[in-house]
Amino acid sequence: MAELRREPVARRWVVITTENPKGPEDYAPVKPPPASDDADGTCAFCPGRERMTPPEILSLRGPGDGWTVRVIPNKSPFFHIEGEFDRRAEGMYDVMQALGAHEIVIESPDHRKHLATFGPSQIQKVLLAYRTRWIDLAQDPRFQQILILKNYPGVYNRHPHAHLLAMPVIPRRIDEEIEGTLDYYQRKERCIFCDIIKEELASGKRVVAETPHFLVFCPFASRYPFETWIIPKAHFPDFHHLQDNMMEDLSGALQMLFQCFYRLLADPPYSLAFHSSPCQSRFHRNEYHWHIETRLRVGLKEGFEWVTGFFVNPTSPESAAAWLRGVK
Amino acid sequence: MAELRREPVARRWVVITTENPKGPEDYAPVKPPPASDDADGTCAFCPGRERMTPPEILSLRGPGDGWTVRVIPNKSPFFHIEGEFDRRAEGMYDVMQALGAHEIVIESPDHRKHLATFGPSQIQKVLLAYRTRWIDLAQDPRFQQILILKNYPGVYNRHPHAHLLAMPVIPRRIDEEIEGTLDYYQRKERCIFCDIIKEELASGKRVVAETPHFLVFCPFASRYPFETWIIPKAHFPDFHHLQDNMMEDLSGALQMLFQCFYRLLADPPYSLAFHSSPCQSRFHRNEYHWHIETRLRVGLKEGFEWVTGFFVNPTSPESAAAWLRGVK
Repeated sequence: MAELRREPVARRWVVITTENPKGPEDYAPVKPPPASDDADGTCAFCPGRERMTPPEILSLRGPGDGWTVRVIPNKSPFFHIEGEFDRRAEGMYDVMQALGAHEIVIESPDHRKHLATFGPSQIQKVLLAYRTRWIDLAQDPRFQQILILKNYPGVYNRHPHAHLLAMPVIPRRIDEEIEGTLDYYQRKERCIFCDIIKEELASGKRVVAETPHFLVFCPFASRYPFETWIIPKAHFPDFHHLQDNMMEDLSGALQMLFQCFYRLLADPPYSLAFHSSPCQSRFHRNEYHWHIETRLRVGLKEGFEWVTGFFVNPTSPESAAAWLRGVK
Repeated sequence: MAELRREPVARRWVVITTENPKGPEDYAPVKPPPASDDADGTCAFCPGRERMTPPEILSLRGPGDGWTVRVIPNKSPFFHIEGEFDRRAEGMYDVMQALGAHEIVIESPDHRKHLATFGPSQIQKVLLAYRTRWIDLAQDPRFQQILILKNYPGVYNRHPHAHLLAMPVIPRRIDEEIEGTLDYYQRKERCIFCDIIKEELASGKRVVAETPHFLVFCPFASRYPFETWIIPKAHFPDFHHLQDNMMEDLSGALQMLFQCFYRLLADPPYSLAFHSSPCQSRFHRNEYHWHIETRLRVGLKEGFEWVTGFFVNPTSPESAAAWLRGVK
């Protein structure tokens, strides 16, 4: 049988198969790992080809010669940094220029590595680059929401990189979360994410790992097989105010989780996103609780979700968490 | 440059590239047409293998021996017809049994055909089967929403078929549309879809075709390349009250549109869904206006939409409509 579970924050129903959940072996062969090298030697993100990219916005450098992390503007941005909003009507419709920022964080000089194979110090550098750029973009009064999004492998380039976006409107998905967070706060005067953390720690059955500052767990109404969230145990609305000691802890949690995915599902494709409160003071919500959502891009029933906003997940979060705990 | 356009009903922003839109040639080679025959002779939907499926719920028969359209329960349903809802709490979370119906409409005895290659009389039979089952399921007081969803090619079987779902809750996507429809109605005392039809007919630039009863157009804030809607020009909340004369007209519109897709993008994969008002009288909304949404499954930027609920569409609806009109 299957259950309908309600995601408590966005209040969306998910169909979850509870009997005979699909396990790692059901997904692993579906998507073989992609070709793993810079075969034709043309990757613009590799060291020595820095001139092939737009001028860099930021680079972190180690004790040696080269850069360890590099941030550049995206050549084909979804959002453009120049211009006016030009909000206007077109007949009965509403339209504006897609003003914003779209940067690429090149996360390593090494074309083949990624979160599952980086050392913890490299992940810390990546987080530092994220935070530095986030703080800078959040100061621009035109932007309401900053987002970090990472796909492995990337759509056009396998070289490890993330997208950093500054958006002129609050995206629907974040807005729904904020609405749910506020509704819960008004009823209970408590943060819903803080309550979720307590619930998950008490039951333990969906917990993958716990670190001094973070909880790693598969959410109750997981929309995707092996969906996993990483959330600070204490209440913080924004990622970009993360302290250095927590950053060290977070890089360890990320490394652990992606190594688990790597071993359990043979280097599966994944996506990862940072959810954080809107950045302008007039939209900023202290009730929000920032976190990272991760998913594996396996076993998608894409058409159904498109129509309904309903997700169908054949791997319950309890079994996913048990499999992931078993790897560690 | 790109524009941010707001979908007027669900009020969701979409990034649309207006300069140098991606055309059919940018998508066609991405997904080659799948293998086109029942090579190993095991398709359970083919004539002669009726015993491999669960007992049929409905079949339409022509003047000859065999069936022309056949409806069966899905062997691996998302929703199960038996049992109780059993709505309950699990800790702080909400859960219930996934009660509902999940039927498969086998749309033709011919394994290789589909909407682009059916004759109009076959499409009429398919619509008749949809309507017959819809009317039956809508009478069950446990179900709030009926949905028809079709993927070509199907995920597990290329034989032409559609999914017919009766759901115990109103899916988020439909709920958002109803909310938008009501909000508009309260402000203007007019149906937003009726206004969209007038706007599109007046401007004409996103119109693909017009029939006596239906408008075929690419919506202003198209989320996907070549997204196209088919909508009755007169106000009807529900698909299942469609009269026979309109059904004939609709089958012609469907055939025309899918033949256009077929020729323009070399037999592309597509999805199609019927959006109709919730079926129980307590949720039924006369303000709603039923329609069919179609999209091609090409050029997906899947990761971004996941995080943000924001779509990025590199083919503006104006150029998509122009290309489609050019095929006819």
